[in-house]
Amino acid sequence: MATVSSVDLAGLGGTTSAQVRKDLSIFGSFGKRGLGYSVADLTARLRGILGLEHIWRVCIAGAGRIGSALVRYPGFAARGFHIAAAYDADPERIGSQWGELRVRDIRELGSDAARERFDIGVIAVPADAAQHVADVMVASGISAIMNFAPVQIATPPQVVVRTVNMVLEFEALSFALANREK
Amino acid sequence: MATVSSVDLAGLGGTTSAQVRKDLSIFGSFGKRGLGYSVADLTARLRGILGLEHIWRVCIAGAGRIGSALVRYPGFAARGFHIAAAYDADPERIGSQWGELRVRDIRELGSDAARERFDIGVIAVPADAAQHVADVMVASGISAIMNFAPVQIATPPQVVVRTVNMVLEFEALSFALANREK
Repeated sequence: MATVSSVDLAGLGGTTSAQVRKDLSIFGSFGKRGLGYSVADLTARLRGILGLEHIWRVCIAGAGRIGSALVRYPGFAARGFHIAAAYDADPERIGSQWGELRVRDIRELGSDAARERFDIGVIAVPADAAQHVADVMVASGISAIMNFAPVQIATPPQVVVRTVNMVLEFEALSFALANREK
Repeated sequence: MATVSSVDLAGLGGTTSAQVRKDLSIFGSFGKRGLGYSVADLTARLRGILGLEHIWRVCIAGAGRIGSALVRYPGFAARGFHIAAAYDADPERIGSQWGELRVRDIRELGSDAARERFDIGVIAVPADAAQHVADVMVASGISAIMNFAPVQIATPPQVVVRTVNMVLEFEALSFALANREK
């Protein structure tokens, strides 16, 4: 049986073995003292904790570059994220084929979401449209949103929002470079 | 003179006005009590703090989709991030034209970086190549790294690293959905 120690895991994750053990202990009892963790068992339990045994139905608002990268990324489907629909407001994009999907009119998102039970909504529209799209998603029952628009969106407390903004990440590097000790 | 209050800023940023004032106070004195902040003055000072008055020279290791998105994103150059070079290990990509850049052989990265003084290195290579690329970047004097590879990289303490991993972000949503109160 292949095993892995908390020291090994800490090395892979860039943290300490004590932190690995502490983090895992939040979710119960893992491994045996001195024997490490069974890789197969730990993998299965972590997948369960993360909800990766589910198939999550994802809809994407905005059929541009970001959505395209998600559609084409094989690791995304492998982790249970099924892209069920893509939407756009641009008449030239609506109806076009996008991988295996046909791009739909974004005005249909609300009624589709209620009927097709999307779990996760991806916001990949321009900043000035992001809040409206978020409102439509929330109103139709979507409770998890990944926001790629460069703007904060406001949602009720029961909705989980993650924001990914590459420019902000680069600005953080810029800040570090500009303020490092000379 | 256009002004903005800490309440306005808090609304845009999804935080509280007290937090806005506290955060800004770290960098000195801004605005006048009861008058708010001059937009032009605040913008200029924030750009200075973030180092956005600099032109940062960026090199990209891995001429794939992520790098391509950066090259084509107009807001990136507008914030002072100048993509000076792109590298790949694939002979079919090396020498090809990539926007205004010619893709170089990744084996040239180390010597180029020392000569062309890149400020920021972007790692957009497969996971198993990421640490080697990071080592080459660090050895050639790059002290800020944006890591898009789905793996932790180890660097000396004086090197700033930011990691962007879309799959991890989606897994965080999955975790929230799987563990929400029923």
